[in-house]
Amino acid sequence: MSLSPHHDGSELYVPEQEPTLGQTVPVFVRVPEGTDVRQVHVRTTGDGEPRFVEATVDRRDGHDVWWRADVEVRNPVSNYRFMLTGTTGYRWLNAAGQVDHDVPDHGDFRLVSHAPPPAWARDALVYQIFPDRFARSAAADGRTPPDWAVPCDWDTPVVGYGPQTPRQFYGGDLDGITERLDHLDRLGVNTVYLTPIFPARSNHRYDAADFDTVDPLLGGDAALVRLADAVRARGWRLIGDITSNHTGDAHEWFTRALADADAPERELYYFDVPTGGGEPTYESWNGVRSLPKLNWGSAELRRRFATDPDSLLRRWLRPPYGLDGWRVDVANMTGRRGADAYTHEVARLLREVVAQTRADGLLLAEHGHDHTGDLDRDGWHGTMNYVGFTDPVWSWLRTGPGDHAPLPNFLGTPGGVRRRDAHAVLATMDSFRSLVSWRSYVHSWQLLGSHDSARIRTVVGDAARQEVAAGLLVTLPGTPVVFAGDEWGLTGGNGEGSRTPMPWHRPERRDAGTFAAYRALLALRRDTPELRHGGLRWVYADADTLVFLREATTGTVLVLARRAAGAPVRLTGLPATGSTGSGPAGENLHGGAPALRPAPDGGITLPGDGPTFQVWRL
Amino acid sequence: MSLSPHHDGSELYVPEQEPTLGQTVPVFVRVPEGTDVRQVHVRTTGDGEPRFVEATVDRRDGHDVWWRADVEVRNPVSNYRFMLTGTTGYRWLNAAGQVDHDVPDHGDFRLVSHAPPPAWARDALVYQIFPDRFARSAAADGRTPPDWAVPCDWDTPVVGYGPQTPRQFYGGDLDGITERLDHLDRLGVNTVYLTPIFPARSNHRYDAADFDTVDPLLGGDAALVRLADAVRARGWRLIGDITSNHTGDAHEWFTRALADADAPERELYYFDVPTGGGEPTYESWNGVRSLPKLNWGSAELRRRFATDPDSLLRRWLRPPYGLDGWRVDVANMTGRRGADAYTHEVARLLREVVAQTRADGLLLAEHGHDHTGDLDRDGWHGTMNYVGFTDPVWSWLRTGPGDHAPLPNFLGTPGGVRRRDAHAVLATMDSFRSLVSWRSYVHSWQLLGSHDSARIRTVVGDAARQEVAAGLLVTLPGTPVVFAGDEWGLTGGNGEGSRTPMPWHRPERRDAGTFAAYRALLALRRDTPELRHGGLRWVYADADTLVFLREATTGTVLVLARRAAGAPVRLTGLPATGSTGSGPAGENLHGGAPALRPAPDGGITLPGDGPTFQVWRL
Repeated sequence: MSLSPHHDGSELYVPEQEPTLGQTVPVFVRVPEGTDVRQVHVRTTGDGEPRFVEATVDRRDGHDVWWRADVEVRNPVSNYRFMLTGTTGYRWLNAAGQVDHDVPDHGDFRLVSHAPPPAWARDALVYQIFPDRFARSAAADGRTPPDWAVPCDWDTPVVGYGPQTPRQFYGGDLDGITERLDHLDRLGVNTVYLTPIFPARSNHRYDAADFDTVDPLLGGDAALVRLADAVRARGWRLIGDITSNHTGDAHEWFTRALADADAPERELYYFDVPTGGGEPTYESWNGVRSLPKLNWGSAELRRRFATDPDSLLRRWLRPPYGLDGWRVDVANMTGRRGADAYTHEVARLLREVVAQTRADGLLLAEHGHDHTGDLDRDGWHGTMNYVGFTDPVWSWLRTGPGDHAPLPNFLGTPGGVRRRDAHAVLATMDSFRSLVSWRSYVHSWQLLGSHDSARIRTVVGDAARQEVAAGLLVTLPGTPVVFAGDEWGLTGGNGEGSRTPMPWHRPERRDAGTFAAYRALLALRRDTPELRHGGLRWVYADADTLVFLREATTGTVLVLARRAAGAPVRLTGLPATGSTGSGPAGENLHGGAPALRPAPDGGITLPGDGPTFQVWRL
Repeated sequence: MSLSPHHDGSELYVPEQEPTLGQTVPVFVRVPEGTDVRQVHVRTTGDGEPRFVEATVDRRDGHDVWWRADVEVRNPVSNYRFMLTGTTGYRWLNAAGQVDHDVPDHGDFRLVSHAPPPAWARDALVYQIFPDRFARSAAADGRTPPDWAVPCDWDTPVVGYGPQTPRQFYGGDLDGITERLDHLDRLGVNTVYLTPIFPARSNHRYDAADFDTVDPLLGGDAALVRLADAVRARGWRLIGDITSNHTGDAHEWFTRALADADAPERELYYFDVPTGGGEPTYESWNGVRSLPKLNWGSAELRRRFATDPDSLLRRWLRPPYGLDGWRVDVANMTGRRGADAYTHEVARLLREVVAQTRADGLLLAEHGHDHTGDLDRDGWHGTMNYVGFTDPVWSWLRTGPGDHAPLPNFLGTPGGVRRRDAHAVLATMDSFRSLVSWRSYVHSWQLLGSHDSARIRTVVGDAARQEVAAGLLVTLPGTPVVFAGDEWGLTGGNGEGSRTPMPWHRPERRDAGTFAAYRALLALRRDTPELRHGGLRWVYADADTLVFLREATTGTVLVLARRAAGAPVRLTGLPATGSTGSGPAGENLHGGAPALRPAPDGGITLPGDGPTFQVWRL
């Protein structure tokens, strides 16, 4: 193993983290001593034309040569890559790594001059709550279940598939959440994300009947104020969930539009009147009739949703609610239909309106597949990074009756997630990461599952591998998101089946060890600046093992993740630390392995136990 | 060697070559018998949401299983890929090939519903002429060289670098071209592309002083009519060259704009008036002051350039000139400047106006680096594919004092083109090809050099390797373009130095063997439908060897390219042909190697001589 020349968008390599249009900023590339690199150029394509500028040696720190080049932020998103010339010619260094042949620009590094996401988002530790299933306040008992509901006792098993699935009603409410914030505090999160809270005709509430009030079944507007106040009082943040792709068919906009072809609401949707008469049809989310699709070509929709001074987007961001931002549901489909391609316009519009309403508002897009084309465009601050994190982590850590047994479901992929080794995990992570700016990458949500997927415990099969998964969650760049209940090792085989009520009164259903691991790992993230702001260098991978560094100006952290036991991993070529002189030494920060002590040749040996997750500070 | 599952956008796999929005079209994937594929799905992301549809076996032809899936052209550009499930899980098949881990959508296949390029363009064999250097008519002697010019005799050596470079004036003219069309006929091309013909203050004329007349030094408007008539009379096509990124500083638009800040022409350019007064500065092409950059944010520019009924874009496409299309100079920078990003709008506008003016007009973009983001957008029909063809072919066939000696220049890349083996060639070609539709790929111009690069003869060093290069030019998909003089083996070390006058009266400077090879290869392209319309399957590569198939409903062609002698290549697993029963047999179409005859086990052996270029019909 030897380290390769490296650059990423973190502050170690790009000290100016908020470049502005027209600015020229220094960028650094780090070349381990002894690497065959005699000359370095930076290549940009400002205004569409390639330009090469020679880099100069900025400094040598004993282990690395740091080359410096100046890059003009010529365009709102300015791409660059390095050309490393050695004795046998040149090779490229881009965000996907080193490559020996000519490659397209999509893997280039990027400087983004758009206004940065809010500062708090970078350090957010998000806890996702599905309100119907989190906790009931005493007031919940007094409420009458709605006509569509199949009332359930808190212990009723969740039905993952079938007509009852959206109708099982457990009656969790917002005051229930408020009462349980101490649990979140013990866990160590600092941001609460609520799936929808508007009135609807399902337990998931993605079929909004109204955007103007909080569902009375959740306690109404006043309960939201109480929750928001309590969250704020702890110095935390609260994020809502808005459906921009569709409403429910019970929404007044839709009922008016359906009833009257001349209604002003008609243009908010896609109606097709069959030639020759007959009932009008309308576009809906994946053909589900209860979820009519919104038409973002409509100026009236843009007004009601966003630009109006009292639009739904704005009002919940303001006092007394004061949501800190929105997670945008089905952002991947929003604005897309046939020849209509409004998605990027809509993202920009929503971001502009959020920023007008509160400067520190967050706008985070749901996206269940390749999101890379929708980022870095002055729209979404980030996305739910299922493809670049969840999927590869699942594929590495998954279990099943056999190595290749399918999982029930991963966001619709037939056959579920295939078991793959760590090289494939790296390749997948790198291929998606390399297509977006570092900023978009680190501000995207990193999750092990959600209300739309199986639970991580079911995916990986046991507590030991769940700890490995949770370890990756908090030690890789990206905003960690914990789906409520994962911290107790709850299970669920698909999205709907994972909407498990929290077993507050069933201690036997809670895995205290998993809770302790999550708590320790979230604290590690919170207390370790390198994990929040550091760059990422892969150091080693074999089928069962991943080793990487998180590095910042403050120091270096070494992470070992193993899905199974194997041979100890011997690493050489890491820089010496402290007073040992010969190689890296490091105290263990998580996992309980011995401190690292270099051998006389400077090499270190990482333990072969597994599954395990270990972190050292070098 | 064994063949892999395959799909590309050619008619063998996508019978509907002109799909329309909303149409559902069948696509086929071919899986060699014995491959571990038990199930095939097609994955699409119409309207932004992944969907999987199971494919069915359409037929078995003895060697392959052909799976069929139906894909809805849900969006103007609809992407799809295949999921091939075998006994150990699934893998993806996208335009980059098979891959074992999850990948972004950018490598997906694409169905494009925009109007197709003109039918003639698909079969075009383009001949590029730099008018000052091609041929002088008798009338040229009577013309007075302009004030900026350094008049040169036809035998004067071209100066590749220096102040004289743009001023060397050889006096070639349009009637000179007209008189020499028999040469083109003997060579076997059918489309003439002229670099600019408008008045200017340089020999290259990319600094237009006027778009309304043909330069009198070239014979004026009447000479263009004569040339166009003569080209048409042969059933050929004629393409002009338009500078959309800038004009010359002698252009009346610019002189008016410079003289008067209130002139209507002011908005056509980018002027910055320094704070505190002083001379206004203006944006220009790469800082060259004589090439002021056009501002496509200007409605007036759009009118003058394109939309006006008598716009410059339109008038030359109409009788009596009747150009068949435009090559758009510096299309990569057009419309890009700082926060301005009008490129895709401009491309769409120009295409719309061209199509209005003549339905069979072509719009082809210059692009010297990664063009992939600018195609498939209802704008440019294709691009100059330097990155996906010229660069890899150069890197494979280049010569030099040592293996790694730099070439003088390749479109500004420091150090020139590195020598690489055929695997790197494939990787480069595939990486760019996989990012555009098959349609954009095959309609892009494939070239071995131009007035902006070294000449291929200088790059490869000898006639034998030039024939290999020319062989790839005519046998790979994409529109072959011959830079006038290459067919005689002329040399040139950089773009300007390659603007070699044609040695009409110097037979000793012409390589008759190279001419014969070009003539034979162009005839091969013209007479072989598989080379014009077939799909592309790589069969074999080693450092010095490339083997591929071009396949259509009409048959199969096998191509062998070697840059050096080596071991004969033994291929097995190709389908049997004709009555031999056991394997592929094939008559040689080019190169003179023996016919292919299968061994009893069905294998064939390709000769190890080299450099060589051989083509067989199987």
